[in-house]
Amino acid sequence: MKSLKVGLLGIGTVGGGTYTVLTRNAAEITRRTGVAINVVQVADKNIDHAKAITGGKVDVTNDAFAVVNNPDVDVVVELIGGYTLSKKLVLKAIENGKHVVTANKALLATHGNEIFAAAQAKGVIVAYEAAVAGGIPIIKALREGLGANKIEWVAGIINGTTNFILTEMREKGLAFADVLGEAQRLGYAEADPTFDVEGIDAAHKLTIMSAIAFGMPMKFDQAYTEGITKLQQTDIKYAEELGYRVKLLGITKRTEAGVELRVHPTLIPEKRLVANVNGAMNAVVVKGDAVGPTLYYGAGAGAEPTASSVVADLMDVARLSSASVEQRVPYLGFQAGQLNDLPILPISDVNSAYYLRLRASDKPGVLAGVTKILADRNISIDAMLQKEPDDNETEADIVILTHITVEKNMDAGIAEIEALPAIVGKVVKLRMEELGK
Amino acid sequence: MKSLKVGLLGIGTVGGGTYTVLTRNAAEITRRTGVAINVVQVADKNIDHAKAITGGKVDVTNDAFAVVNNPDVDVVVELIGGYTLSKKLVLKAIENGKHVVTANKALLATHGNEIFAAAQAKGVIVAYEAAVAGGIPIIKALREGLGANKIEWVAGIINGTTNFILTEMREKGLAFADVLGEAQRLGYAEADPTFDVEGIDAAHKLTIMSAIAFGMPMKFDQAYTEGITKLQQTDIKYAEELGYRVKLLGITKRTEAGVELRVHPTLIPEKRLVANVNGAMNAVVVKGDAVGPTLYYGAGAGAEPTASSVVADLMDVARLSSASVEQRVPYLGFQAGQLNDLPILPISDVNSAYYLRLRASDKPGVLAGVTKILADRNISIDAMLQKEPDDNETEADIVILTHITVEKNMDAGIAEIEALPAIVGKVVKLRMEELGK
Repeated sequence: MKSLKVGLLGIGTVGGGTYTVLTRNAAEITRRTGVAINVVQVADKNIDHAKAITGGKVDVTNDAFAVVNNPDVDVVVELIGGYTLSKKLVLKAIENGKHVVTANKALLATHGNEIFAAAQAKGVIVAYEAAVAGGIPIIKALREGLGANKIEWVAGIINGTTNFILTEMREKGLAFADVLGEAQRLGYAEADPTFDVEGIDAAHKLTIMSAIAFGMPMKFDQAYTEGITKLQQTDIKYAEELGYRVKLLGITKRTEAGVELRVHPTLIPEKRLVANVNGAMNAVVVKGDAVGPTLYYGAGAGAEPTASSVVADLMDVARLSSASVEQRVPYLGFQAGQLNDLPILPISDVNSAYYLRLRASDKPGVLAGVTKILADRNISIDAMLQKEPDDNETEADIVILTHITVEKNMDAGIAEIEALPAIVGKVVKLRMEELGK
Repeated sequence: MKSLKVGLLGIGTVGGGTYTVLTRNAAEITRRTGVAINVVQVADKNIDHAKAITGGKVDVTNDAFAVVNNPDVDVVVELIGGYTLSKKLVLKAIENGKHVVTANKALLATHGNEIFAAAQAKGVIVAYEAAVAGGIPIIKALREGLGANKIEWVAGIINGTTNFILTEMREKGLAFADVLGEAQRLGYAEADPTFDVEGIDAAHKLTIMSAIAFGMPMKFDQAYTEGITKLQQTDIKYAEELGYRVKLLGITKRTEAGVELRVHPTLIPEKRLVANVNGAMNAVVVKGDAVGPTLYYGAGAGAEPTASSVVADLMDVARLSSASVEQRVPYLGFQAGQLNDLPILPISDVNSAYYLRLRASDKPGVLAGVTKILADRNISIDAMLQKEPDDNETEADIVILTHITVEKNMDAGIAEIEALPAIVGKVVKLRMEELGK
C-alpha cells in the first residue's frame, strides 16, 4: 500500500489530537484514501511528553529542523504557532520540497503571501483548513464547495474565547472582567488573553477567509480590529430588549469601492442562526451570489476538532501529492497570477447600521436635538428605546438604532450629539449587521 | 486556455440556473480553475425555451441521446430527474467515456450502486453535490472535509417543502392541509406533493448521505419513511410548550447492531440551531468522533442555489478530469472494494426517545395505570404535561416525553396503554432526538 510519511512539529494540544486521530481512525482513513498516513518523526521541546504520547513508536527529537530536513518525511505538519520559528521551518520544509499542513493562522495572515509564493515555485502543497474555525471545513467550502459563486461577504464567529465570554455575559448578566477571570480558570482563555479579546486572532482568520473569498493577497496589516474589552453589560441588555444579540464578528465584504475587513462587536438580529451560536462554538456565514446565505457551524478549537481539519488536509495531500499543479486547488482558491490587489476600505469609509447609547439629562427637547442632528446627516432611525431615569437620578439612557450610513458620517454626528449640553459623557457606538439576503 | 465542454440535459429551473451561473460568473470561474467551462449543447423537450435561455449561442436539441453521444462533449450534466430515461442517459454517457454531473437524488439513491460501478469501470467522474441539500456543499464536507472522522450520525432537514409547511403550521397555527394548499399556490409544493410530504425525497437524500458517511452501498429500499401528512397542530403546540420544535428529519446513525436509516417528524430541543431552521431552508448536522457536532445550512432548492453545486462539481471535473483515479475522491468517499455491507436496522429495532399524547377520561387512577405500564417496561419519563379538560369535556390530553428505549418496547407499551379502559382512541407517538454531543 502507498504511504504518506508525516513529520509533526509540536505535539501539544493539537499535535496530540492529530496523533490520536491518525492512530485511532487509521483503518477508516486508509479505507477512504487508499494510503497509510504514518507519523514518522515528531519534534517537540518536551521530549518526554512526545515520547509518552507516541509510546515509543515514533522517532522523537527536540530539533524541529531535523524533521524539515529529514529525507524520509513527505509532509511537515506545523503546529508550533507564532510567526518566527514557524516561518523559518515552513519555508525550509518548502525549500526541501516537502508539502506543508499548518494550523497557524497568525503565520498565514502575516506571511502567507511569501509562503505561498515559495510553495508555488517548488510545486508543493500548503494546506491550512485547521487555521480557520478549527474543525469546520470552511476553507474547503470557500475554495471549492462555493467556487461557482461570486462571494459577496463572509461574517463569522471565529474566536471561541470571546464567544464564550459574550455568552456568559448575556446569560449571567456579568461584566467582561468577571467572565474573563472565569474563562481563564476554565481554560477557555489564556493567561495573556490579548490576542483573543482584542480581536487579533479573529482578524488573522478573517484575513485568510477574505483572501480566498475574493481572490486577493493577505492584507492583515489593513484589518480593522476592535475587541470586546470595552463592551458593557448595559449594551448587551439593551440590544436584547431590541431583539439583537452582540457577537464578536469578523466581517469581510466586497464593495465597489473596496473590501471591508473588520473585526468588532456586532449586533445581529436574534432570529438569525448565527446569533444563537453560543459558548465556545464557531460559525461562519458565507453569502454567494448564486447560493445565497449559507452557514457552517462547529467547534472552533480543541485537540480533536482541530485535528479533524489537520488530518483532512493530510488526506488531500495523500491524494494530490502526485498530481500536477493544475489538478490541485490553488493556495487561495484562485490560479497563480489571478489574484486581484483589491484595496481595503478604512473603517471610516465602511457602511453600517449603528446602535447608539446616549446618557441625557431628563429635560425637554433633548430628543429633538439628537434627532435633528441625525436627520440633517440623512441618518434614519430604525428603532429607539428611551428609559425613565432611575430613582434619585436626573439622567436617563436613550438607545437609538440607525439605518445604514457611512461610518465617518456617523462619527461626525456622534461628535455633534456629544456637544449637546444635555448629553452627558460619550456616546456608545456599536455596529449592526442584518446578515440576511 | 484549456476548456471543459458541457452537454446539458434539461434546461428547466436548475438547468436554467446552471446556464446563468456559468455565464454570469465565467470570469470568476476561470480565475479559479484556469479552465473555460462552456456549455456546447443543450437537450430539452422544449426547444424554444432552450433557445430563448441560451440566446442562440448554443446548439439545442430535443434528443438527449444526441448530447450523450456527442463526441465534442466532455461532461454531461443530467438535470432531467426521474429514474428511467435519466438512468439510460447517464449510463450511456459513462459508456461513452464522459464524466457526469447530476442533481438527481432519486436516480442515485435507487441506481447509484450500478451507476458508480459503471463509472469505476470506465474511469470517469460522477459528481452529485447538487443531489443533497441544494447549494449546501454537504457532499464535499462528508467525503472530504470530515474525512478524518468516524462519522457517528447525520441528521438533516433536507426537504424544503416540508420544512416550509412545518414552519407555517407552527407560526400560524394552521392544519397541514391548509398550509399545503398555500405552499402549492406559492410554488413551494408540487401539484402532486407525495414525494415531498411523505418523506420520500428526504429518504433519497438521506440514503446518499448514509452511504458516504459510513462507506456502504445505497440502501434506499430499506429506509424507513414517514411523512408529515398525519402530523397534527395539537402536537406541534404541545411540543413547543415543552421546549421542542417538530421537524421532518432524515436521520442515519451507525450503531453496533447496524445502521439506522429513517425519515420521520422529530421533536428537537428548541435550543439546537437545527430546530431554528425555518421556511424552505435546509440544514444538516454531522457528528464525527473527532470534530463533534457540526452543522451546514443554506438553500436546499431553487435555480441558482442548486446551480451553485452543479457548477462546483463542474469545477472539480475541470481540475480532475485528467487526474488518475487515485487522485480523485472516490464516488462514495471510500476506495473501490472498501465499502462495508452494513445491515440496516428495521424501525422496530431503533432506539429513540418518544413524545406520546394520550386522550384520557378524567377519572382517578388513569395516570397511575399509564405510568405503571411504562415503569414495567423500563421506560423512564422525562417530562409530562397533563391538561385540564376543556369546558363541557370529560376527557383531557396527557403528554409524556420518555427517555430512550427500543421502538418495539415502546410500541408494545403503547398497545397496553391503548387497552386501558380510561384511554380514548389511539396514542399519538412521535420520536425525539437530542442531537447534542
